[in-house]
Amino acid sequence: MPELRKDLIRDQWVLIVTEQALGPNYFPINKNGTYVLNSNKICPFCEGNEKFTPPEIAAVRKNGSEPDTPGWIIRTVPSKYSAFKNEGEVSLEEKGLYKNCSAVGKQEVIIGTPEHGTDFSQFTIERIELVLQMFKQRYQIIAADSRIKYIQIYKNRGLFAGASQEHSHSQIVGLPTIPEENKGIDKYYQENKRCLICSIMQEEKTAGIRVVYESNNFLMICPYASRFSYETWIIPKKHTEHFADISDIEIKNLAYTVKKILGAMIDCLDDPDYNIIINTAPVNIPLHDGYHWFMEITPRFLIPNGMEISTGYRINPASPEISAALLREKIKA
Amino acid sequence: MPELRKDLIRDQWVLIVTEQALGPNYFPINKNGTYVLNSNKICPFCEGNEKFTPPEIAAVRKNGSEPDTPGWIIRTVPSKYSAFKNEGEVSLEEKGLYKNCSAVGKQEVIIGTPEHGTDFSQFTIERIELVLQMFKQRYQIIAADSRIKYIQIYKNRGLFAGASQEHSHSQIVGLPTIPEENKGIDKYYQENKRCLICSIMQEEKTAGIRVVYESNNFLMICPYASRFSYETWIIPKKHTEHFADISDIEIKNLAYTVKKILGAMIDCLDDPDYNIIINTAPVNIPLHDGYHWFMEITPRFLIPNGMEISTGYRINPASPEISAALLREKIKA
Repeated sequence: MPELRKDLIRDQWVLIVTEQALGPNYFPINKNGTYVLNSNKICPFCEGNEKFTPPEIAAVRKNGSEPDTPGWIIRTVPSKYSAFKNEGEVSLEEKGLYKNCSAVGKQEVIIGTPEHGTDFSQFTIERIELVLQMFKQRYQIIAADSRIKYIQIYKNRGLFAGASQEHSHSQIVGLPTIPEENKGIDKYYQENKRCLICSIMQEEKTAGIRVVYESNNFLMICPYASRFSYETWIIPKKHTEHFADISDIEIKNLAYTVKKILGAMIDCLDDPDYNIIINTAPVNIPLHDGYHWFMEITPRFLIPNGMEISTGYRINPASPEISAALLREKIKA
Repeated sequence: MPELRKDLIRDQWVLIVTEQALGPNYFPINKNGTYVLNSNKICPFCEGNEKFTPPEIAAVRKNGSEPDTPGWIIRTVPSKYSAFKNEGEVSLEEKGLYKNCSAVGKQEVIIGTPEHGTDFSQFTIERIELVLQMFKQRYQIIAADSRIKYIQIYKNRGLFAGASQEHSHSQIVGLPTIPEENKGIDKYYQENKRCLICSIMQEEKTAGIRVVYESNNFLMICPYASRFSYETWIIPKKHTEHFADISDIEIKNLAYTVKKILGAMIDCLDDPDYNIIINTAPVNIPLHDGYHWFMEITPRFLIPNGMEISTGYRINPASPEISAALLREKIKA
């Protein structure tokens, strides 16, 4: 059974997935620095290959086609290689000095297109909207499981973004613990009784230099302390804790906004690998007023080096102010 | 001037290096997922190319050869692309909501061999010993600068470990701030008035299953919550805060121990990219008794994905217990 183990040095959970010794052939990187995603094998996410995934748990389908057969527009399946086990209760255990927590949780894959070669950035706005609706629907269902304390929605596009499949897909994970990565949100709220994200929006609108675009419902910025070159945030203007509280109108506007920024990035940055991440409030705990969901899009040009790993300080060689100006001009054009 | 900017969401510093907008051609990864280290260009670290680096600041040389000419065994130069500026005073500034700190610091490159194609793992024990002696010497010199609060020694081997040069080298960075990445050490000491690393050694010696090797002065383990597959720590048995307090006998034994584990990793794991990291106590602040330096060797098989970036939880698909057994058998053989 996979387990979360506490790294006592960093005071952070690590997910140990398996009891197998995996040799180097398991990993997509080989010693020549070349790599293989699964492009030569049967793609389990292509239309017609439905039997290579676990049975679907949600889908948008044409003409009332049957589950696990062709005819789908969007398809959601449990992850075949889930790092979490969707069974049993969450139990914390101490073993001498060490602590572990059973990795109870959910991991689902949202396949946004039946077409192998079509990247998310090439989706129509309508298709992006359907994917976002699916995120919301799955979020609500996962949040109904009281064992789950945090829901992470993310997309890995390309090897350098940590993808293991070439075919465009997103993932949604339900975790039994609350990550402390965004601890600054809590800290700021405790100290100021204000939402940090709302404060950032106000600051950025005044400064202007890091604003990439403003749509009806969203502000798009390159953040002041961007960890990744050309990192861009899409922030809902309305203070909203949970992603699942997004309205239909906001989903429409978000799809439009995402399409705009991805188009600009693909153009300006020579079609980079990237992640999309949705930060949101914990679930099944008393409400934290300080939370405010937002989306991050992070192109991945550099691999974290020894200094970044050891100190936790990211190094970003591209100024967010100049990055924002470049993306802003591209979107206008 | 490069600056440290506080990422308020993660409550963490980010180093913004430059005021330039860097396009995708700046980065070693391109859109085809292929990459170029500088193998086709003139290597600034090769013997005979001394003029392509800033003037050397330390070296081990044969026959009294002149600085910045051939004839060196180990050569240390300031980094040509330093992320830090070795001038001025450390100043914290607040700009509205945001905080920054001038990135005053030092970044030096230790070129461990004049031969382009020889990896650290192929060095003789005597050469590894000279590199470790150089680390100690530079650590002492950098620590004498009272602006510096933390010294990070690290090696990036290969693109997937974040290297930008192919020729084997290590780096030593002097930082104006103390990273909080290893905050668990402090926390444990405050709660238990004991050194966490000493406690870990005791626990691991009793358990045995994660011990890879024990030499005269060092214990080698795959840590309980390994963040990377086959991650291995080399811990000095004697409680020692600062790396620079390593004795000559310990340096000899460390060189021998490092050579052993790197040989086993290269063999077992098909010559992986890897980092070597030395964790140590902060400098120029009142002593923290809880610190205890140790070395980490982390093969790099996977690129952090969206979930790892967003939650801060690393995912490791290889059990440390089985990894330790594999490396242990290889070292014995």
